[in-house]
Amino acid sequence: MTIDQSRAEATRARLLEAAVQAFAERGFHGTSTRDIAAAAGMSPAAVYVHYRSKEQLLDQISRRGHELTLQLVRDAVAAEISPTEQLAAAVRSFAAHHARGHTTARVVNYELAALSPEHAEEIRALRREISAEMRSLVERGVADGSFDCPSPRIAATALLSLGIDIARWYREDRTWSPEDLGDAYAGVALRIVGAR
Amino acid sequence: MTIDQSRAEATRARLLEAAVQAFAERGFHGTSTRDIAAAAGMSPAAVYVHYRSKEQLLDQISRRGHELTLQLVRDAVAAEISPTEQLAAAVRSFAAHHARGHTTARVVNYELAALSPEHAEEIRALRREISAEMRSLVERGVADGSFDCPSPRIAATALLSLGIDIARWYREDRTWSPEDLGDAYAGVALRIVGAR
Repeated sequence: MTIDQSRAEATRARLLEAAVQAFAERGFHGTSTRDIAAAAGMSPAAVYVHYRSKEQLLDQISRRGHELTLQLVRDAVAAEISPTEQLAAAVRSFAAHHARGHTTARVVNYELAALSPEHAEEIRALRREISAEMRSLVERGVADGSFDCPSPRIAATALLSLGIDIARWYREDRTWSPEDLGDAYAGVALRIVGAR
Repeated sequence: MTIDQSRAEATRARLLEAAVQAFAERGFHGTSTRDIAAAAGMSPAAVYVHYRSKEQLLDQISRRGHELTLQLVRDAVAAEISPTEQLAAAVRSFAAHHARGHTTARVVNYELAALSPEHAEEIRALRREISAEMRSLVERGVADGSFDCPSPRIAATALLSLGIDIARWYREDRTWSPEDLGDAYAGVALRIVGAR
């Protein structure tokens, strides 16, 4: 990477961070490109050198957030042997990630309706992959006798809900660290699927 | 109630409904009083006859939503004898309510940061009451041996999260009716608390 390229990278990162803060505070529709530019210490015109629109910033934030979450779940499945260990690892990591990055996770999960139809469809495809990973993990556990649960689909929905909703309520001043919460929710997850 | 009073009531209800739709679609900060007036077929000036501000509309929506949810939980506790039946009834009713009224519930749960400090504090007090009801229900179950769970506080947090997050993902075209979802989540809740 040349110096110019790495400067451009740093500027884009600063803009994404400013956009996350602004969207989390005032929502996508309550934020102007001018607000984001000001928060990043730039002119609105300078923003357009890096991003075509406010919507493209939201798309980048959403895409990275969803790709990272999908990767977390896949890494947990790859790192462990039994469905019980895989589920505990996936939920622990999912929950801790949503606590640690709760501001970004709020934008990633609650501003999807503001995406363009094309971007919304791509993000929905990523969400379907995350759901499918979680559901197939629960189904594998039921199939090999590790789990006992009446509806893997309901269980997977509940597990994802628990993780995502952390973004809504978690704040740094809470009793639990992201890691404590991850451990506790791994236990809750094993109960939901009826781990033996 | 006189005819004038009941007309004013009907107008206020229409404004609240228009505000719910607008806030759910574009967020509080992305919605103007003019948008709400237009959706209710009124002039902006006519809105101010009934509500002092856009924030007062949000406060009314939040307050009613939280009071209703608190009542649902208290009704379930009052209607049933054992902690197991109380918890199943509370979660069933909470989940079905959040599915049925998912648009309102999104505004009620995701726009709290836009309330004035005074209103926000009052709504937080209602939320603390809802949490306390749920936690004390779990604690009663643990105390009388109906439930077996390592942390009633984590369990109560998870139970509320499951119900609230329904507002984010539920749409009418889903496989589950609000009642099916309520039944399924009552089962999930009993697993989370380790009901015997």
